[in-house]
Amino acid sequence: MLKTYRYEGDFHLESGAILHGLEIAYHTFGSYRPEADNAVWVCHALTANSDVADWWPGTVVEGGFLDPARYFTVCANIIGSCYGSTGPASINPETGVPYYADFPDLTIRDMARAHSLLADHLGLGHIGALVGSSVGGFQAIEWAVEEPERFGRLVLIATAAKASPWCIAVDETQRMAIFADRSYGERRPDAASAGLEAARAIGLLTYRGPEGYNRTQQTPPADHNLPVREHRACSYQRYQGSKLSRRFNVYSYVKILDAFDTHDAGRGRGGLQAALDRLVMPALVIGISTDIVFTPSEMQTLAAMLPHAEYREIESAFGHDGFLVEHDQLNAILKY
Amino acid sequence: MLKTYRYEGDFHLESGAILHGLEIAYHTFGSYRPEADNAVWVCHALTANSDVADWWPGTVVEGGFLDPARYFTVCANIIGSCYGSTGPASINPETGVPYYADFPDLTIRDMARAHSLLADHLGLGHIGALVGSSVGGFQAIEWAVEEPERFGRLVLIATAAKASPWCIAVDETQRMAIFADRSYGERRPDAASAGLEAARAIGLLTYRGPEGYNRTQQTPPADHNLPVREHRACSYQRYQGSKLSRRFNVYSYVKILDAFDTHDAGRGRGGLQAALDRLVMPALVIGISTDIVFTPSEMQTLAAMLPHAEYREIESAFGHDGFLVEHDQLNAILKY
Repeated sequence: MLKTYRYEGDFHLESGAILHGLEIAYHTFGSYRPEADNAVWVCHALTANSDVADWWPGTVVEGGFLDPARYFTVCANIIGSCYGSTGPASINPETGVPYYADFPDLTIRDMARAHSLLADHLGLGHIGALVGSSVGGFQAIEWAVEEPERFGRLVLIATAAKASPWCIAVDETQRMAIFADRSYGERRPDAASAGLEAARAIGLLTYRGPEGYNRTQQTPPADHNLPVREHRACSYQRYQGSKLSRRFNVYSYVKILDAFDTHDAGRGRGGLQAALDRLVMPALVIGISTDIVFTPSEMQTLAAMLPHAEYREIESAFGHDGFLVEHDQLNAILKY
Repeated sequence: MLKTYRYEGDFHLESGAILHGLEIAYHTFGSYRPEADNAVWVCHALTANSDVADWWPGTVVEGGFLDPARYFTVCANIIGSCYGSTGPASINPETGVPYYADFPDLTIRDMARAHSLLADHLGLGHIGALVGSSVGGFQAIEWAVEEPERFGRLVLIATAAKASPWCIAVDETQRMAIFADRSYGERRPDAASAGLEAARAIGLLTYRGPEGYNRTQQTPPADHNLPVREHRACSYQRYQGSKLSRRFNVYSYVKILDAFDTHDAGRGRGGLQAALDRLVMPALVIGISTDIVFTPSEMQTLAAMLPHAEYREIESAFGHDGFLVEHDQLNAILKY
């Protein structure tokens, strides 16, 4: 069930802007047993939400690594998103109308700090495991670097300690597609829907990669004599684009992409290695064999930079999306 | 020097449409010596032109595999393009104004048939080698399947005998970005320039891939304390997009993408293997180690489907663009 925590203090963003009456939407699964240190915090990715059981199949189930009979799992919707936490589609208390493009700039550290507030509110002094996949891992690393003593262990799946030039180029390309839609900037929730659809299609290319598409989007062979322009892969891209634009706000999307591109755990901390040296808890770093967003070799490098990390690799044809698909392998690795 | 051949007959496209007064722009390098069988035909990719010496550095030079002292190299601008051959920006003789979006649908076979007309016009009954890289290879395969006896050997670099679901998904995503720009459809040469810029940026992501970006687009490290949103990778994407939109017509771009997606050398020929069985000449199939557009494993499969092919691989960090960058390796492989 979706719950909401409202923070009555001033929430200071790194940009200098202040959010008043910050709301953080979250889900919990299972029961907290402090004596068992059974809290697991999951950080979600770009367009997901706090309902882990919904977007991460096969995990919040009996025998899964978030088995609700054993663990108390918490997931908070990231600030800036549109699934209940304060974001561009929320009403700006100073104007009485939605922020839209006027929402202040965010960073991953701002998101992690909101998680920390919620954890305090929930009385979770110590959290057994902090889990982040994809951009969820960005938040996990930032939060763990700020409060390393809070976490028993760290699980980083298909993620990075710093946004790479490649990831930033992908994000910039998505922004270019959104801004090419001249309705971006209009004060309505469905502004730039065509641009957002194209942006999502760009993201998907990188999430699935060559092998993912070639395995799942073959057009059934036919000894046709006429040129065929309309392939299954075309309708798939359009369908996925339109599916996202119906459920996500373009201003949230852009603000979150912008935040990703600021991610650098070493910023203001004497560099990346100095920051990661603080992560003295045991860590599992998990790469996906065909991931082209966060490649296995980058994941191995990340593991090598952490004081106590073990590297494991998931075999998958589904690229970055493998973390959502290969829950059996994840459960096998993460059963602890 | 750019030359133009005007075909006075009716040019029938596969779509059923007819082009009247088809013009084919082309370059030649070196001198034709029929007794030496020294003609080499190069098919160019998406946004290139007939000036091979310009877009393929290190090839039309002394010691290069297109050394003008030894070879007579021909390259024709593909029909539908905007570098001199008839395309969407050309005047429609029936209306007296440019075709723009009204230009008829094209296929790779149409493009190859235009090459064949020009070869006849130039008196090139036999062509020593037919070379195609990327989508140039699509044309080379189509042409060679139609007229296998015309070619002494075939050189296929980072290409395919059939558009893969992955490549089609990339093309569809580019079209989505272009169509998100509502000025697409306007009858002016610079219509949808923002959409075209985003499309080009999408293409570039796949041409360079993760390793290419991470190697060349690092932002110089600085122990900055403030979040930085503007990285080198961002300005690179925008710069490359804008560079293309200044030199290329969006209606040409879309027509050519559409043509790529129809590419299937097996269409109407009893399937892919039956079509490729016609290619009895010696063939060199060259993959690039980090190419995510046409992966090394796909290139190996293509080589295995050809009757007399040898597979070679270029080591490169530059992904698909490696064929443009690694001319030394190409010259070493292709010196014949």
